[in-house]
Order: sequence, then C-alpha cells, then structure tokens
Amino acid sequence: MGFLFKRLLIVGVGLIGGSLGLAAKARGLVEQVVGFGRTEVNLKIALERGSIDTYTFDPAEAAQGTDLILLAVPVEATGSVLQQFLPHLPSGCIVTDAGSVKAPILETLEALLPPSLPCVAAHPIAGTENAGAAAAFETLFDGSVCVLTPTDKTDRTALARVRALWEGVGMRVEEMDAQVHDRVLAQVSHLPHLIAFSVMNGLLQFSQSRQSPIEKVDPLVYAGSAFADLTRVAASPIEMWRDICLANREALLVAMTSFETALARMKAALAEGDGATLFADIERARQERQRLTRLREGK
Amino acid sequence: MGFLFKRLLIVGVGLIGGSLGLAAKARGLVEQVVGFGRTEVNLKIALERGSIDTYTFDPAEAAQGTDLILLAVPVEATGSVLQQFLPHLPSGCIVTDAGSVKAPILETLEALLPPSLPCVAAHPIAGTENAGAAAAFETLFDGSVCVLTPTDKTDRTALARVRALWEGVGMRVEEMDAQVHDRVLAQVSHLPHLIAFSVMNGLLQFSQSRQSPIEKVDPLVYAGSAFADLTRVAASPIEMWRDICLANREALLVAMTSFETALARMKAALAEGDGATLFADIERARQERQRLTRLREGK
Repeated sequence: MGFLFKRLLIVGVGLIGGSLGLAAKARGLVEQVVGFGRTEVNLKIALERGSIDTYTFDPAEAAQGTDLILLAVPVEATGSVLQQFLPHLPSGCIVTDAGSVKAPILETLEALLPPSLPCVAAHPIAGTENAGAAAAFETLFDGSVCVLTPTDKTDRTALARVRALWEGVGMRVEEMDAQVHDRVLAQVSHLPHLIAFSVMNGLLQFSQSRQSPIEKVDPLVYAGSAFADLTRVAASPIEMWRDICLANREALLVAMTSFETALARMKAALAEGDGATLFADIERARQERQRLTRLREGK
Repeated sequence: MGFLFKRLLIVGVGLIGGSLGLAAKARGLVEQVVGFGRTEVNLKIALERGSIDTYTFDPAEAAQGTDLILLAVPVEATGSVLQQFLPHLPSGCIVTDAGSVKAPILETLEALLPPSLPCVAAHPIAGTENAGAAAAFETLFDGSVCVLTPTDKTDRTALARVRALWEGVGMRVEEMDAQVHDRVLAQVSHLPHLIAFSVMNGLLQFSQSRQSPIEKVDPLVYAGSAFADLTRVAASPIEMWRDICLANREALLVAMTSFETALARMKAALAEGDGATLFADIERARQERQRLTRLREGK
C-alpha cells in the first residue's frame, strides 16, 4: 500500500510532534519524517528515538518536497513559525497544527496561507505533563479523540487526508466548529490546568504564611494519590500553557466562573454545616464522574 | 515469631479495613481477623477475598478476645459505632481508627473510652476513589505515610504496637499533633476532593445552562487524561466525604480560601491579558509540583 504522505515536516518535535512521528512511521503512514526545531539536543533525541528520519535548521531545506507540515509549537508562535516556511512550501502542501485552541490559530493560518496551501486545523486530545522529544511515545494517541475544525474554506481532500493520518495512529476523529471546540476544551482541559496550578500556588502561599500553624511541616509529604493526580498537569510546560490561556481567554473565564460558582456553593454549605447540600453536591458530582468512567471504558 | 495481635476486629470492612485485613494476614501480623459491618453482602465479599477470617453482626461476639479494634467507618459515625462495642471489649484492647480527620475523632474516643481501653488515633494516607470490600487490595499501604496523633494521655505501649502494625504493612509512620494533621490534610486531601466535586458540578451547570453554546455536545467526550485524573476522586463515597468536610470544617474553609486566592490571581491576570503574571504563576506551580514528583519518587 502507498503512503498517506511522502514527506511529513514536523515543526516542534516535542511530546505531540515526536509521538506522531513514531506512530506514523510505525504504521507506515508516511515515507519520511523531517524534524525542525529550536534546539539540536532535542532534535538529536528525536532522531535517536526514531521520531524523525532527519532534521535541519534551514526552512528551505526542511520544506523541500513536503506534502504535510505539522506546526506543533506553542499556540501564540504558530503564525510566526509558519511564516519562515511560507516562501518554501511546495504547492499543494497541507498545513496542519495540533494546538489546544482552534479559533485563533485557524484565523492566523487562513489569513497567512495562499489557496495553493490547504489548511486543516486539528487538535489531537492526548498528552501528558511531560515535554520534549524524550517524552514522546508511539501509543500516545491510541483510542483518544482528535478534533478537526474545518471551515467553509477548508479543502475537502486535504481534510480527508489529515483525518486518515490521525485515524491511522489510532484516534477517533470528529469534526467541530472551532469556537465550540474552544469552549468545550476550556471546560475539560484548560480550566483543569489552571486549577492544578492554583492548588500548588495556594498550598505554597498557605505554607509560607505567618498564620500557618504548620510551619515545621512540609504538607507535600502528606499528599496522597488524590493530590498527586489532581495536580499532575501542574508540571506542564510553562510557555505552552500561558499561550493556551491567553488564546482562549474568554471561554476560560466563563469556565472559571462556572467552577467558582460550584465551589462557592459547597463552601457556603460547609460554612453553614449544611450536610444535606454537601451530600447532594457530592452525589451529583459522583454520578457525573462515574459517567465519565463509563465513557472512557467505552461502555 | 509471634503475632502482633491475636484478634483484630475490623469494624467497616471497606477499602481501608479490607486492605488492612489482607495485608496484615499476608505478613503474619495478626492471628485472626474478624469483620463487623452493616451489610452481609459486603462482609461475604471480604470473607471470600480473604480480608477477614469470619464475621458477625453481634457486637458481644465480635468483641470477644479482641486485642485491637479498628473503627474504619465514616468520621461522624465513629463514636456511635464504638458505643456498641464498649460493654464487650476486653480490658487492654486497643481502640484505633483510620479516619481522615483526627482532632474530633480523638476527642470523641478519649471522652468515651475508660483507661482500661487504650486509644491510638491513626490515619493511613492511602486510598482510591473506590469503596467496599471488593475494592480492597493487599498493597494499598505500600510506601505511603501513616500519621499517628498521640496525646499526653496516649498509652506508649499501645502506640508502639499500632505503629508496628502500620509499619508491618509497609507504611512510613509519623507522629503529629491532631490539629496540625487536620490542617495539613485539609490542604492536601480534603480540598482536592472538594475541587474535584466542584469541577464536575461546574461542568454540569455549564452544559445545562441556556447560555451554553455547546448544547449538542457532551463535553465529557472531549475530556482527556488531565480532566480524568483531576476529577478521579469525585467518584469517592458520598457519606464519607460529607462527614470529612463537616468534621474538618474550619481547616477546610481556610484551605479553600488559599486556593481561591491563587485562582483569582490567575483569573485577574487572564482577564488583563497579563502573560508575565501567568508565566510566573505557572512556573512557581510547576516547580512545586516537580518537587512533589521527586518526593514521591523518594529522591
């Protein structure tokens, strides 16, 4: 069988880019994978681990013969990174990304790209808190959802080819309006990250405050698996998450408000010793969380 | 070698009680384990899985010959459950618990118990979101911390024997003032649970609101591992967590306020588009979370 793509250029060979390289090569979806990035140390790791076949720091060389360029860089950098390659990309080369926010990226890409370079915005919803080529692994995408956010302008053949790539590495691919995507992801991904960061910072502030009665105790020593799991993503890359927050600001503010309202309700019940409301809130949360477990188990 | 205890009575053979039975028997720490509980279905599961050697619904029979009684029931029930056994416990029988809140339990136990029944309050910091004897497993306690909260009244021999039991099943045992314990656990355990509940409830409320632009979308379908891990403990037992919240109300309100302050800071930065503050907050949180990873890896 032929390859889906002859030459895939991955710009930003981190967790997502590196894992796609590994998975796409393992499944015979691409003939050659070229890496492009800022630091040679990382590209060497990607090469050694088999995520890419070669790398270069020359945009013209990188772009040569490429039929798919994946921009796997922090959201805010997408436009400026793409501009380096624009003069060099062969006609018909599909431009795609893997960003966690879609509407602003789509706007940037569609404004920059000529009709000869079809654009397909994508968000493979997979990841860990770890960054860089060393964190990449072949099965990262297995069984997870990838959202494509086509517009009226999107080339249907390009869309189908990008879909085939993500399906080829094991993802369930869905199409969605970019704005809807951003609102949903604000709730189920961006807000959880902000919460994880704030749990760590709230604890730090408490530990360091004069009022603290626990001056000689390191609270983290007493953290069990609930705390560890809740805050796991607080170790995520800084720049990447600052950019996601800023790019999806409005939807994230809405999500924060929903959460704050729910938390304030429990706080008020707690302050009043209202066990019935606490019970009802925990019960509703528990049922919904059990529904998530069933969804994830594919039931 | 002799057994640490001849007859361990576990009242409430759930995740903690059941796992202790399994672990203590596997390591030859107790000669016999007796189960006591509300529902026979659960006790039968405990018996089949080997957590207990026998069970009974008669407090007098249960108490006979017991040299350690573990009260592994929801915090608020500890006192009333103990009272059933008080007329029957043999002199010298140690009374212990596994509650997540220590000061109120200790107060209850010390008020109820005569000098002939030494009391040692304990909190093995281990668990999952699952409940019941079916959720118990032998290695639950391996490598985790168990906090004992002795007071001036605590019998030193009884303290040493309870320490030996939890060390025997693989825990690192530490002693701490009960009030300090409750303040620390409010931050690293109770708050994370309230957050997990509130994330689920905030999302539910958002999904159901008329303003929601995502009416036809089920946000949970797009939840990745960050959301799943952050909300894992939202599936925890309702009654148990209502009781913990109420019993540790003051410390938990303080913890909620620290967290809300940290979250509000990020929200303000987000609203103002202040990338520098977001970067600094994420960076600080990340460093602290990486410190937790090193602590958990024993480095």
